[in-house]
Amino acid sequence: MPQHNLDDTISLLARTPATLNALLRDLPDTWTRRNEGDNTWDAFNVVGHLIHAERADWIPRAKMILDFGEACAFEPFDREGHAREIQGKSLSQLLDEFSRVRSENLDKLRAFNLQPKDLERRGLHPSLGSVTLSQLLATWVGHDLTHLHQISRILAHQYRQTVGPWSAYLGVLHCAGHSEKA
Amino acid sequence: MPQHNLDDTISLLARTPATLNALLRDLPDTWTRRNEGDNTWDAFNVVGHLIHAERADWIPRAKMILDFGEACAFEPFDREGHAREIQGKSLSQLLDEFSRVRSENLDKLRAFNLQPKDLERRGLHPSLGSVTLSQLLATWVGHDLTHLHQISRILAHQYRQTVGPWSAYLGVLHCAGHSEKA
Repeated sequence: MPQHNLDDTISLLARTPATLNALLRDLPDTWTRRNEGDNTWDAFNVVGHLIHAERADWIPRAKMILDFGEACAFEPFDREGHAREIQGKSLSQLLDEFSRVRSENLDKLRAFNLQPKDLERRGLHPSLGSVTLSQLLATWVGHDLTHLHQISRILAHQYRQTVGPWSAYLGVLHCAGHSEKA
Repeated sequence: MPQHNLDDTISLLARTPATLNALLRDLPDTWTRRNEGDNTWDAFNVVGHLIHAERADWIPRAKMILDFGEACAFEPFDREGHAREIQGKSLSQLLDEFSRVRSENLDKLRAFNLQPKDLERRGLHPSLGSVTLSQLLATWVGHDLTHLHQISRILAHQYRQTVGPWSAYLGVLHCAGHSEKA
């Protein structure tokens, strides 16, 4: 993709809640509440994290770029910030919530009425330094896909022993954890 | 999961067509018809491969186990066998077809009326040797998840450059290809 096409970005972002809903809603807890071992997340946690990122990351950071440019760094993102999102909730509630906040955020994104030149506007990431709005919005997509990739891996992990000798052929079982929590 | 629970297996297998439908149907070709480079598959190919496996792998092999045990090896699975499935078809047609054949195959699986002891029945894999029905059915799940994991990675690959410095944080961009075609 030579240039960032905002419609392509939105088309993918708009599908993630329905994708997770189709995969996870009413799936037995043996799938959704088991993780990959100590200090790893289960699928329930991942959905909580996605909600937290909707509130604390993408749109707030896009606004920072549009309002302040590089004059003021983004708030650091708290990778454990979803703890309060998930407390006392069911997975169905989290899936509903993710769908709602994503839809609201895409409305906000469309309301920015961004033009191609706006995508090149810059902001200041607390660790990465200067970044563009285009990079931020592409990362929103990449973050969804990182966590869909992670959820596939978490679910497959539950059958790691059960598949027996076929484990050699199943790529998802040979994927080591990658980014810090994904 | 200490013992293979067939209901858990079916609960996941039943969700894959809707998951891929939510993610891929009407998604622009810039996402679905781009791959990860030479000799790799795009998402369209992966759905074709999943259909081919429905026809040639899971249920036919389960029947081989139930009818012949270890007396007769499974047909080798052709990883390029989906070429004729995808020819001249649209992604929407493939998604419809996958949904239909998966649903038919789960009906067949239920009609086997398998009991726990049946899951321990053995068959002969042409390369792996002796395998159980339990392992075959768990691998059906692991295969779905391998390809959902792969599709997430193929899609994310399209924004590999676009995310800029955030690539360091996105696990899906650090996943090398694993099994031969996944």
